Amino acid sequence: MSSERQYRREIASFGKMLHERGYVAAMDGNLSVRLDERRILATPTAMSKSMMRPADMVIVDLEGRHISGRRAVSSEIAMHLLIYKLRPDVQGIVHAHPPTATGFAAAGIALNQPLVCEVVIGLGSIPLAKYGTPGTPELTEALEPLIPQFDAILMSNHGVVTYADTLHHAYMKMETVEHFSQIALVTHLLGRQQPLGHEELEKLMLARSKYQGSKSAAPLPLAMGGDGAGNHREAVRCDSENSSSESTPKSRRAVTRHR
Amino acid sequence: MSSERQYRREIASFGKMLHERGYVAAMDGNLSVRLDERRILATPTAMSKSMMRPADMVIVDLEGRHISGRRAVSSEIAMHLLIYKLRPDVQGIVHAHPPTATGFAAAGIALNQPLVCEVVIGLGSIPLAKYGTPGTPELTEALEPLIPQFDAILMSNHGVVTYADTLHHAYMKMETVEHFSQIALVTHLLGRQQPLGHEELEKLMLARSKYQGSKSAAPLPLAMGGDGAGNHREAVRCDSENSSSESTPKSRRAVTRHR
Amino acid sequence: MSSERQYRREIASFGKMLHERGYVAAMDGNLSVRLDERRILATPTAMSKSMMRPADMVIVDLEGRHISGRRAVSSEIAMHLLIYKLRPDVQGIVHAHPPTATGFAAAGIALNQPLVCEVVIGLGSIPLAKYGTPGTPELTEALEPLIPQFDAILMSNHGVVTYADTLHHAYMKMETVEHFSQIALVTHLLGRQQPLGHEELEKLMLARSKYQGSKSAAPLPLAMGGDGAGNHREAVRCDSENSSSESTPKSRRAVTRHR
Amino acid sequence: MSSERQYRREIASFGKMLHERGYVAAMDGNLSVRLDERRILATPTAMSKSMMRPADMVIVDLEGRHISGRRAVSSEIAMHLLIYKLRPDVQGIVHAHPPTATGFAAAGIALNQPLVCEVVIGLGSIPLAKYGTPGTPELTEALEPLIPQFDAILMSNHGVVTYADTLHHAYMKMETVEHFSQIALVTHLLGRQQPLGHEELEKLMLARSKYQGSKSAAPLPLAMGGDGAGNHREAVRCDSENSSSESTPKSRRAVTRHR
Repeated sequence: MSSERQYRREIASFGKMLHERGYVAAMDGNLSVRLDERRILATPTAMSKSMMRPADMVIVDLEGRHISGRRAVSSEIAMHLLIYKLRPDVQGIVHAHPPTATGFAAAGIALNQPLVCEVVIGLGSIPLAKYGTPGTPELTEALEPLIPQFDAILMSNHGVVTYADTLHHAYMKMETVEHFSQIALVTHLLGRQQPLGHEELEKLMLARSKYQGSKSAAPLPLAMGGDGAGNHREAVRCDSENSSSESTPKSRRAVTRHR
Repeated sequence: MSSERQYRREIASFGKMLHERGYVAAMDGNLSVRLDERRILATPTAMSKSMMRPADMVIVDLEGRHISGRRAVSSEIAMHLLIYKLRPDVQGIVHAHPPTATGFAAAGIALNQPLVCEVVIGLGSIPLAKYGTPGTPELTEALEPLIPQFDAILMSNHGVVTYADTLHHAYMKMETVEHFSQIALVTHLLGRQQPLGHEELEKLMLARSKYQGSKSAAPLPLAMGGDGAGNHREAVRCDSENSSSESTPKSRRAVTRHR
Repeated sequence: MSSERQYRREIASFGKMLHERGYVAAMDGNLSVRLDERRILATPTAMSKSMMRPADMVIVDLEGRHISGRRAVSSEIAMHLLIYKLRPDVQGIVHAHPPTATGFAAAGIALNQPLVCEVVIGLGSIPLAKYGTPGTPELTEALEPLIPQFDAILMSNHGVVTYADTLHHAYMKMETVEHFSQIALVTHLLGRQQPLGHEELEKLMLARSKYQGSKSAAPLPLAMGGDGAGNHREAVRCDSENSSSESTPKSRRAVTRHR
Repeated sequence: MSSERQYRREIASFGKMLHERGYVAAMDGNLSVRLDERRILATPTAMSKSMMRPADMVIVDLEGRHISGRRAVSSEIAMHLLIYKLRPDVQGIVHAHPPTATGFAAAGIALNQPLVCEVVIGLGSIPLAKYGTPGTPELTEALEPLIPQFDAILMSNHGVVTYADTLHHAYMKMETVEHFSQIALVTHLLGRQQPLGHEELEKLMLARSKYQGSKSAAPLPLAMGGDGAGNHREAVRCDSENSSSESTPKSRRAVTRHR
């Protein structure tokens, strides 16, 4: 029971950080924690993430039925429930709209270029889910194929969802997504990208298996060249969409490095 | 009377937040609350929004005549009075210059593309009012046709005004405008926009009517294709200005999605 | 004497704000206050603006000779002394490197487009001074022709200086310069600018003379069309440099509005 | 011993600042201080820089062997040890991923243009090291030729490392790198750069030798024109890569100034 109190405080505290960093505006965003095998603690609907107190949180069961709390639960609870169902390792989920990453999501561009080694180690790549109307099965259907193999997903015309073994780690993955989006945008503005090659990615894969603190289920973005795509087709599709924009004056110019 | 004290504190507090977030510089911006059917509590002129104390606020009547307060009222009070007159549901107003949204306003571009579903639910679209010299009837004339049907308006070469049933909600709409502007700018920089289609907008309209916390009077941006424009012609005009820029190398490239 | 204590605290406090807002990095920037007709209170050299205490400030005379204080005065004191000499109305000066405005200064582009009405009212326009090596007479020579008629100056490959009747107002002008630079950059990125026309500028000039809180000595940017340039040729030169870039794909496209 | 306590607090405090400024996300980044001729105090691995307490730090010897501390040391300790070995003057090191500078590092572009005089005085230029897999000898080999002559280095597809006579000065150089990156990016977006010429650089070199607070070992970026490259070939190579992008529509347009 004392841990439930702790989780209520954590949700309020990470909610405040989402707002302070500009990752949510108005009443956007929602967070949750898996309390035990049948109860989820989640943020209420229609409330600014900067103003929540521990007592405002809501407890629902795994079908989303209200168990306790004076408020109604977030209208996006179905997304949380699906993630908890498909990923038994996940204990915490954060959904927000960090502006740079959400810009990629509204442009229809996945974050799957291996531009920064620590993002490759921490997240692999960040795919783009198809659009689905919030609060409908469309949304969960769009996420379903991606949840098992990625820990952070861009949601088209919507935002970002991240999840991990703790709420703290899920929050940190959200920071990584926005931070990496900013870096990717800068390379786009500079008109040059120098992504890591296959050889470097293979070395990182080795480093990753030894790396402390990384518990990601996500594959490395080795599919970029079209080879070894395995079963994460969504990422490949997004990547080919990126390629199609290369004929525009502002396209990404991947610079092959010879070393 | 105790609520007046509370409103004075709220205005001071949201004024400080406007400054901390960089939505105003120097002595820019103004806020107000409708105290009752004949009195408006508003910020004073010539004072940094970061430095106001509750006692600095001014009370005027619905014609802007000074009722109480040591200071002179904001020189933009006429805009507030017009909004209170045309919108009996409005109790709080925020005017600021968030830099990204004000950049759109200085570029002559409305924020009327349906790029992010929660912005469509919360604000519909954000039209661009014609320029009018501050402190003159030109300014209020430019806003008048837009106030009845929108809750957030870009003011050409000036800034943004938002209003709602409470000052808190008006402030949150200001956050949403700047947050959405940042997302829209990122899509512009990436050279791609993947706006929601008619079908998705119709589904959102349904979702919106059920959505808790949304009390917007604004129409959904269904007019984008030129059909169903109804009576918000200003938004259509702005949109057609957007289209005219599509022949430039940096134009928005709307990507039709086939699903 | 009590006011000197107050000024020491004010300099420390605005120095901290410069750092918090990212307007200075490392030991950049300097601030000063005119204590009386023969003494200037200024920040010390080689100290982070985020770490200054009131006792760290230095007092010099109008020729820059050390009067009191354990530290050496800022190496850019000559710029401050020149401004106090040419502008008897000035009591406070702020020099910083806000990144967007300094980007304009490193690109060789003045901020002289009338894009936002309140900036026109508050600052007129912001010219670009030629480059001069810091700590040499070159720097003061470059600023000298601009100081009498402007309250904020971009310094090529260097940063920004602002000054006013109080240190507080000088600091607020620095905020306005960076805030306006951000807006101008957004219009540039959007590939469109919709500047105010002559008629609107004339109306603003009238409004300005009545405007409370504005004490700027700067002329309105009426010189833009090449007419009425008067004696601020520097601003005109910079403007014509802007025009020369209009043939590039990323040039500013000024949209004439017909109203 | 009391100074060790002080250093533990300093590392925790600058770690928090790195996170607050967005220079690290998740568990990125690491910091260290040279305690004496045989011991290094460094941040632990797998911990958010915003959450470290003084007791979390780890002490290792100059070969990286664990001396004390409950946690494992940062997995990037080899980079710190190499810098301490090659630079006896260095007492503090900061490694982070500030997003704009890391964008340059992921684009393969060095920060070696003399755009801002105080950056030239403080850092000279900021070269780009080749990519090396973190935690392997590749990484230290890529840095080795640059460490003796530069105080701040961009690491390809990774981030930035800075070092100085104190941890405080190393942190301030990190701020300068990100601040300068922002300025350089703005000039890139404006499509114009007006770098300092040889004559101005020579004058700055003189000013620098007299400048209080500057203790940089780095050469001035006089090699830019291809002449006087001396022994820092890496910087020249990066610069020539920059030049190769000048034929694209978004290339930097260096404007020669005639004065």
